[in-house]
Amino acid sequence: MGGSVFGKNIKVMTFGESHGAAVGAVVDGIPSGLSLCRDDIQEMLDRRRPGKNDFSTKRNETDEVEILSGVFEGKTLGTPIAMMVKNNDAHSSDYDALKDIYRPGHADFTFDAKYAFRDHRGGGRSSGRETIGRVMAGAVCKKVLKEAGIKVSAYTRAIGPITAIETDLSEALSDPLFMPDHVVSERAAEYILKVKERGDSVGGIVECRIDGLFPGIGETVFDKLDAVLSKAVMSIGAVKGFEMGEGFNSVNLHGSEDNDPFFAGENQRIEKKTNHSGGTLGGMSDGAPLIFRAAIKPTPSISIQQETVNKNGENTVISIKGRHDPVIVPRAVVVVESMAAITVLDLLISDMSSRIDHILAFSEKRKNELQTDS
Amino acid sequence: MGGSVFGKNIKVMTFGESHGAAVGAVVDGIPSGLSLCRDDIQEMLDRRRPGKNDFSTKRNETDEVEILSGVFEGKTLGTPIAMMVKNNDAHSSDYDALKDIYRPGHADFTFDAKYAFRDHRGGGRSSGRETIGRVMAGAVCKKVLKEAGIKVSAYTRAIGPITAIETDLSEALSDPLFMPDHVVSERAAEYILKVKERGDSVGGIVECRIDGLFPGIGETVFDKLDAVLSKAVMSIGAVKGFEMGEGFNSVNLHGSEDNDPFFAGENQRIEKKTNHSGGTLGGMSDGAPLIFRAAIKPTPSISIQQETVNKNGENTVISIKGRHDPVIVPRAVVVVESMAAITVLDLLISDMSSRIDHILAFSEKRKNELQTDS
Amino acid sequence: MGGSVFGKNIKVMTFGESHGAAVGAVVDGIPSGLSLCRDDIQEMLDRRRPGKNDFSTKRNETDEVEILSGVFEGKTLGTPIAMMVKNNDAHSSDYDALKDIYRPGHADFTFDAKYAFRDHRGGGRSSGRETIGRVMAGAVCKKVLKEAGIKVSAYTRAIGPITAIETDLSEALSDPLFMPDHVVSERAAEYILKVKERGDSVGGIVECRIDGLFPGIGETVFDKLDAVLSKAVMSIGAVKGFEMGEGFNSVNLHGSEDNDPFFAGENQRIEKKTNHSGGTLGGMSDGAPLIFRAAIKPTPSISIQQETVNKNGENTVISIKGRHDPVIVPRAVVVVESMAAITVLDLLISDMSSRIDHILAFSEKRKNELQTDS
Amino acid sequence: MGGSVFGKNIKVMTFGESHGAAVGAVVDGIPSGLSLCRDDIQEMLDRRRPGKNDFSTKRNETDEVEILSGVFEGKTLGTPIAMMVKNNDAHSSDYDALKDIYRPGHADFTFDAKYAFRDHRGGGRSSGRETIGRVMAGAVCKKVLKEAGIKVSAYTRAIGPITAIETDLSEALSDPLFMPDHVVSERAAEYILKVKERGDSVGGIVECRIDGLFPGIGETVFDKLDAVLSKAVMSIGAVKGFEMGEGFNSVNLHGSEDNDPFFAGENQRIEKKTNHSGGTLGGMSDGAPLIFRAAIKPTPSISIQQETVNKNGENTVISIKGRHDPVIVPRAVVVVESMAAITVLDLLISDMSSRIDHILAFSEKRKNELQTDS
Repeated sequence: MGGSVFGKNIKVMTFGESHGAAVGAVVDGIPSGLSLCRDDIQEMLDRRRPGKNDFSTKRNETDEVEILSGVFEGKTLGTPIAMMVKNNDAHSSDYDALKDIYRPGHADFTFDAKYAFRDHRGGGRSSGRETIGRVMAGAVCKKVLKEAGIKVSAYTRAIGPITAIETDLSEALSDPLFMPDHVVSERAAEYILKVKERGDSVGGIVECRIDGLFPGIGETVFDKLDAVLSKAVMSIGAVKGFEMGEGFNSVNLHGSEDNDPFFAGENQRIEKKTNHSGGTLGGMSDGAPLIFRAAIKPTPSISIQQETVNKNGENTVISIKGRHDPVIVPRAVVVVESMAAITVLDLLISDMSSRIDHILAFSEKRKNELQTDS
Repeated sequence: MGGSVFGKNIKVMTFGESHGAAVGAVVDGIPSGLSLCRDDIQEMLDRRRPGKNDFSTKRNETDEVEILSGVFEGKTLGTPIAMMVKNNDAHSSDYDALKDIYRPGHADFTFDAKYAFRDHRGGGRSSGRETIGRVMAGAVCKKVLKEAGIKVSAYTRAIGPITAIETDLSEALSDPLFMPDHVVSERAAEYILKVKERGDSVGGIVECRIDGLFPGIGETVFDKLDAVLSKAVMSIGAVKGFEMGEGFNSVNLHGSEDNDPFFAGENQRIEKKTNHSGGTLGGMSDGAPLIFRAAIKPTPSISIQQETVNKNGENTVISIKGRHDPVIVPRAVVVVESMAAITVLDLLISDMSSRIDHILAFSEKRKNELQTDS
Repeated sequence: MGGSVFGKNIKVMTFGESHGAAVGAVVDGIPSGLSLCRDDIQEMLDRRRPGKNDFSTKRNETDEVEILSGVFEGKTLGTPIAMMVKNNDAHSSDYDALKDIYRPGHADFTFDAKYAFRDHRGGGRSSGRETIGRVMAGAVCKKVLKEAGIKVSAYTRAIGPITAIETDLSEALSDPLFMPDHVVSERAAEYILKVKERGDSVGGIVECRIDGLFPGIGETVFDKLDAVLSKAVMSIGAVKGFEMGEGFNSVNLHGSEDNDPFFAGENQRIEKKTNHSGGTLGGMSDGAPLIFRAAIKPTPSISIQQETVNKNGENTVISIKGRHDPVIVPRAVVVVESMAAITVLDLLISDMSSRIDHILAFSEKRKNELQTDS
Repeated sequence: MGGSVFGKNIKVMTFGESHGAAVGAVVDGIPSGLSLCRDDIQEMLDRRRPGKNDFSTKRNETDEVEILSGVFEGKTLGTPIAMMVKNNDAHSSDYDALKDIYRPGHADFTFDAKYAFRDHRGGGRSSGRETIGRVMAGAVCKKVLKEAGIKVSAYTRAIGPITAIETDLSEALSDPLFMPDHVVSERAAEYILKVKERGDSVGGIVECRIDGLFPGIGETVFDKLDAVLSKAVMSIGAVKGFEMGEGFNSVNLHGSEDNDPFFAGENQRIEKKTNHSGGTLGGMSDGAPLIFRAAIKPTPSISIQQETVNKNGENTVISIKGRHDPVIVPRAVVVVESMAAITVLDLLISDMSSRIDHILAFSEKRKNELQTDS
């Protein structure tokens, strides 16, 4: 049944193969009246573009967004917003040699196993270019959240074993690896270059923090905020793990250490003294910042020779030449941020009908609204 | 919009509060013709029941399943299967003292924040009893998978810092902690008792292995097998992390270490020499066993005194008395297994329409079917 | 993939075969804080019960609802509301003769064609008892709508060719045929009895009117209010047609006749002079009462002898004896009303996020909410 | 929550305003391996294009489809198929006069009521151009169905009171009004021209017939074939009614007339002597041709002067000049056909998992499949 649709209240459908005509996204359910322009999208897209430093490849992907629908006179219409980026740097013939060979760590084999047919050029649908649709949709959702005072910030927590100690969100934005700690980032950069020289690759951790959430966002049981976020993030290629707050470390804590004590803050607002939970309790936001991490595996494309098979089931070897990042972690940062923004907006909207009082207040307001004022 | 429905082809809706009349599940989309009896469900339910050893509480929850619909003469009808367990050991008054106090690490506060009203008795909808519905639905899906030669096995990998070294699936079933390593299990049991004595609690890791999957299960982009599994598992209360294969450890590997080399196996079947990926590539099963892990936080209910607030935003302290497990990891095992079974069946069905040839073969078969043979 | 789930924001899952243990419904997405008691449900259920007059059969279906979850201290919790009616008047052996014979106009043949197996007793899942789940769910949704000032009223517009001329909604409630015109109802009653005497049956038209809708309910393109209502109503067994406002009659009108002129009403509120549209424009409520009709076919169970086949594809004849209504129109009235209520509530909730201003106002309110006041 | 997504197994998302950059559709869930080229889509699009005769307007809408993704080397990939038609004949300034006036019978008022903002040019999202996305998606689904031997044919049954008597499907394709009866079509054409001269408009009936369906397509209870078709068709702008088989006429029939007797046909295949049901029983296809009808209201755009209001709630009059069809029925034919094709394919896929035997046969086949053969 496909798998390119995400969300319940906000529905994001992405499309596009790496070397096809275009990649894009259509987003349904965005409210009307939001100020939105091309730059809001382009700015996010630019953050995922490769070729800006030594750690990523020299591809000249300009990735210019075109908004095809849903925006009129600088504002959203409440109708689907279709966005597209044409593919224009396609060296398709580069991939001829890979047509019948299954690259280890890639989806070549499983695509053939499922569909008995695939677009082998640049990874086709499983290419990193698939994330362009996610980022465009995420940019729109981020804009809505921003209006509501909610800020989503992802950054690189670790490159291989090298972990950022500081968490300076403004440093992260200007850092070449999107690390919130310039000092550690320099060491990480050196590490990447050393790995790259041997034709190998490295993984890392993307962390995301969401500020400004009121308590209660997330649905009970299956659509918990953590659960939907987890799906959103694990659906990004190369992500192999997800954790909230203490995450896997909570295994080694005792209840007396892991539980966050409540206290009465300003205006008797209920707050927590610590945030081991990462900002959710029972699958709902608890008022503390949301903190989660994604584990990104090392880039599977390496020039070191690897054993593999071809389509005919014959053993062979492969050495992947050409333009490949030794690390994709920095490029994944904006993708994680995008998926988080879509998820949070989707669940915030779900929350709007959680109490009868919310529904009655809305109905009342709409009934009293003179159409002449609208 | 609620959050108690899971799945696309198979739709599971669970219901029930801890101290309400009943907890249950309705499962729509189960095919007709499956042999199914009460015992198939009860057997799975019995694996989650507490009170069987020193590590869990003495509650006498008999949890007898009643099948209300969807089964006739021992076979499924293709219609919704409704299953229910009556709540009959409800010491509701035990919870009177907790009515207005928010237990740290629990969902009391967030439920009130979202709904402005909650059933405080036994945790209400956020109680562990909520998982009874998941297990009943999982039991049905497991039965379908079993017929298709797919086996789902969850077990306790770690209790706090104590990790099982062996992975003997048959040992796991008879082990009091569901550990696949009796020797380590004994040490873990001692550890739990020591923690329990101090009124504290401990977490752990549940691991799950799925054998018999053909390659290609999972949808591209958002509904990757890893992503949907992740949501399924992260939606279980107390789960704080999810990882596939090497998971968070892949961060520290290089591509040359993490990539699984392919080779031509028996009958030129394509296989992998290692399974760092945990059985998926590009979000689809790759033919190797599926391996994933869930991090379970320490039980939040502890008798050690904790700081907290009441509903009125006044600071207070709480010491949770009564029947509480010092560790919930063993009870989560069958729940993880259940959620995995539902997910895999759901995505296996999605795969049935992935190629035009599958659809044409089905149509042809149905057209040629003499109704007199049906 | 089953087919027993309805709705997007409100999710209704029904279950149950006619002669199984129980029929029921679970409703997810109902807001917290709604006053709800057993009687709210029972009252609607009683309106669909047969055996109250000469036009329906003498079955003693008491149909007592049990609420299993989602309600605490007389108010909804925001969690799934599970409701069940036990089947207790099952003369299953009455149906032995029908086990292998396909009744014309019934779903016996198609159930076997699809599932290769069915519960033949009382029609199994395709029995009229299936609608009990719809009515219970509809009763809950009607209660929410009532709080919001929205009233859903269905009634019998026609029995065969005999059409009610008056539309007195209060008469409809007390009329034995639920006709809003006692005078015509008496003629219809005579007509039914005459048809019944010959062992034949008759159809009719159910009309539904919804008052109190503010303009704008319904989504553009595929989820138009008319479209979702149409699915809701056409999904009721025996409904063969659906129309809004002028409906099929609009075919014969000219634009100048069918268009409803707007005018400035009280307080410059925009109103329509006529309501040929039936209360929607472009798939959204237009502020006028919603009016739609459902065509109900004659009851297929008749005692007149009919030609048919058995499971083995052998020609035979059948004469259906026993308890069967010569007309099901009056019993369908409350079912239509229920499906309309579910649909309208679902789309009203969708509307809550249609403008950025709605979302921002909600966020603002939630952020300012002191948890101590909730 | 938007409303531009249709389908469960096949997901169609359409986008685009009449005078925006483009209109289009993305279709997810189409199986891989289907031969598909631009002409397959263009041919269907050409059938909805206006300006080909006296009954429709002279707009020069070339409507050239561009396939953006999902097709490689002439075959579908199993990934989303994005299709787009650029808007290039936009006389946007023609609509300046209508910016603040609500046209009777149109969605101008309800769009403003819902979104407080709209694209007034050419009807924006509620324009007839919205159906381009439906037709492109329908073209793809029709191609799949054709491979499976299923044929979907819509045609004009009536223009106003003038009803086609013959049903010659090949005549319908070449008829200027898509009527399956050239003789009646000529009378209908004269009628339309007469109405057009007075500046008025007329409605009609589109009928659709589907051949080649095996019995059992359609899900029980809410997702009956009739119900989903009804939603699909009622979601088309200007459709005010839907009926299956005898439809509203069944109201006046007796059970003995309306029931279709079964008989044993060739090879003891079970068939029906008549087809009053229109090809469904209990919401599932019964093996007879599927027959349904849609009532289309008269075009609301008329040059006759009408009373109305402006945005400020002031009374005014309007006379709609310019390019408007006096009848939209012929243009709706291919749209109805498209929506029917999407629906039938979606439910055919649902049927693939209706029996355990189907699932086991599929699993067995996939397991035995040597990847080297795929």
